Amino acid sequence: MVVNTDVRMKGFHKKVSVDKALKILLQNTGVLETEKVQIANTLGRFLSDDLVASQDIPPFTRAAMDGYAIKGENTFGASQINPIYFKLIGNIQTGKVSRINICEFEAARIMTGAPLPHGANAVVMFEHGKEFKDEIEVFRAVAPGKHASLKGEDVEKGEVILKKGHKIQPQDIAIMAAMGISDISVFKQPHVSIIATGDELKEPGMELNEAEIFDANSYSLHALVERTGGIPKIRGIVNDNYKELIIAVKKALKSDLIIISGATSVGEKDYVPKVISELGAILVHGVAMRPGKPTGFGMVENKLVIMVPGYPVAAIFSFQIFVRHVLEKMQGCPTPRKGYVIKGKLKRKIPSQIGRRDYVRVIVDLKHKVPLIDPIRTGGSGIITSIIRANGFIIVPENTEGFRQGKIVEVNIF
Amino acid sequence: MVVNTDVRMKGFHKKVSVDKALKILLQNTGVLETEKVQIANTLGRFLSDDLVASQDIPPFTRAAMDGYAIKGENTFGASQINPIYFKLIGNIQTGKVSRINICEFEAARIMTGAPLPHGANAVVMFEHGKEFKDEIEVFRAVAPGKHASLKGEDVEKGEVILKKGHKIQPQDIAIMAAMGISDISVFKQPHVSIIATGDELKEPGMELNEAEIFDANSYSLHALVERTGGIPKIRGIVNDNYKELIIAVKKALKSDLIIISGATSVGEKDYVPKVISELGAILVHGVAMRPGKPTGFGMVENKLVIMVPGYPVAAIFSFQIFVRHVLEKMQGCPTPRKGYVIKGKLKRKIPSQIGRRDYVRVIVDLKHKVPLIDPIRTGGSGIITSIIRANGFIIVPENTEGFRQGKIVEVNIF
Repeated sequence: MVVNTDVRMKGFHKKVSVDKALKILLQNTGVLETEKVQIANTLGRFLSDDLVASQDIPPFTRAAMDGYAIKGENTFGASQINPIYFKLIGNIQTGKVSRINICEFEAARIMTGAPLPHGANAVVMFEHGKEFKDEIEVFRAVAPGKHASLKGEDVEKGEVILKKGHKIQPQDIAIMAAMGISDISVFKQPHVSIIATGDELKEPGMELNEAEIFDANSYSLHALVERTGGIPKIRGIVNDNYKELIIAVKKALKSDLIIISGATSVGEKDYVPKVISELGAILVHGVAMRPGKPTGFGMVENKLVIMVPGYPVAAIFSFQIFVRHVLEKMQGCPTPRKGYVIKGKLKRKIPSQIGRRDYVRVIVDLKHKVPLIDPIRTGGSGIITSIIRANGFIIVPENTEGFRQGKIVEVNIF
Repeated sequence: MVVNTDVRMKGFHKKVSVDKALKILLQNTGVLETEKVQIANTLGRFLSDDLVASQDIPPFTRAAMDGYAIKGENTFGASQINPIYFKLIGNIQTGKVSRINICEFEAARIMTGAPLPHGANAVVMFEHGKEFKDEIEVFRAVAPGKHASLKGEDVEKGEVILKKGHKIQPQDIAIMAAMGISDISVFKQPHVSIIATGDELKEPGMELNEAEIFDANSYSLHALVERTGGIPKIRGIVNDNYKELIIAVKKALKSDLIIISGATSVGEKDYVPKVISELGAILVHGVAMRPGKPTGFGMVENKLVIMVPGYPVAAIFSFQIFVRHVLEKMQGCPTPRKGYVIKGKLKRKIPSQIGRRDYVRVIVDLKHKVPLIDPIRTGGSGIITSIIRANGFIIVPENTEGFRQGKIVEVNIF
């Protein structure tokens, strides 16, 4: 798989398809180690084992309402006009183990969440009964099981609730807590070094000459890494200088992953592929996609190095199409997580080129039964606002010259 | 708006509609102060001012490809068989200010990102030219503007790019950086105290007796607050005890917001509303919704206190329907952010009750042009797995007895 290449000034020999590039990339991505984390801090982390129920939830049959624990069948026929009388034999509090046993036409006051006493199978709400000393008039019939939460009705012991590699959501944390789990094993978060290259780049906040621009990629990549569960570190701007790049890459090898933006193409000063191939090996250089063609991957001392284009939009797409899946795999996510996809109808045709996969930014109007999809007309991968205005993108595959107006297409939502 | 109430053992006097409850709640929600934050750390924060372009982006017209800067009109008619000859007059590097002036049929080597020299209006890619000493054969015609990014084509100086109250995304951070902004003013993040009440509750990891369960709500609320941009603090479990609750609420007043789960209903031991009305005032107690009926809000020393039901699913819905919007408003979000909504077709009918808003958990199948919506059959708000299996919910409004099978409905995606 290793292509040792210096393509500067010659154009890409051969662009690899997106699918092949992603396959090569993920074949070279390792899964990180695991660590125990307190459940409160696991939002967005990935489970390193199946979550198997260690107990029934609820752990005992309990009252779902405040009221009277009774045998449901004893209430049959009860109404406002013809109440049925029960003997009040005690109180059942939440949290306390009770010895009460409910016989025919007996009742005990019970609070929501308290264990239903032996012999009872339902609860009559307080509003549907009236107490007279040790007797209760019940005005409403309740079937057995009414206002009771049965042992194990949520989760049965031994059940697999969540799979290894699942990304943890708030409700998942609720179920872990409900099972008494205080901390849980998840995959570690990848440390990611971000390097920007370019003689024309300056850090935001500094002064520019008339040929300089500010580095945007370090900051958007920082945010994207953070949102994907990684721990980003901005390592600053490196000039288009072979030696400086060598030093910067070597320094960044402490991280689990390196992302370098800019100087990844085939120009005279595009030193990044050369540096990576000399320090290690290039796996892919040039992908048949737009935006993002100058994307490449390499390995240096067993660490993946991702080269993303300098154009801000192309860098974001390279991240979304490739780096995101790398970070998720490192965190134990078993297969590339598909983004959120919906179907909609194209408002305008999209032209494209055979042999290249296009990612077209679109504005989705969800007010319609079949959402309307409006492709943004700008093609330039330097136009950052195009990705701010868009709320999704369409993939135009390699084997087509584009999509006609009115076509039903899949939209990946941002 | 203040209802001073002790409704324990009597049922809710009068449930408030969801809309009215939310309106009252947001009327009593203040916006937090602002702070300057480094742009790399602003993901998910809310802008406290409009983002107005302080400069054009790009700040100068630049080459979008490596190649030769020329006058586009001079290339007209060029082809592989009939090349057009240009005089090579220099090199333009990225980041350097150049004095070069391109006259008719002159060319300068230029690198992507370098400013287009005076007189040039397009770039011929290196691949489409061939150098002989100081002369270049050009094989391809390029229109003026080709392979050039025009000054201001992304953003024009003075343009409003993002509005005050906007939630910051990675691409927004890119545009801030591109404008040279190193730190930006955003609203502060709310500190949120989370209190769980219930004699039957134990912290995960501890031992249970046969009538006890583990506290799940503190942990799911922690995750939900975190995901909404708040800074959560779990303050532990308080028994159903009037004095202990008073102490716990007073202690939590250091926060910007207090969420108390459990003991919010109308049972004998539901002390929370009583405590809140004694320390301050109740604004709403009891909402015409399912799940989440025992939701309530109060004010203590100018701090909002949200009472969410003890049932885990009801607590999550109370959060999503109410608390989320409070946290967003505190962070400067101007109107309640609608969740992500799509339309789909009901696979099964949903019965409901007039006068109450139902939130029905559903499984959405997005494989169809019109997605299929499958309501989850369990109604119990104790069933945490119902919200783990679901990927969205439907709102059945107050004025309907439910939805028929096949109806096109809106689904709120989790």
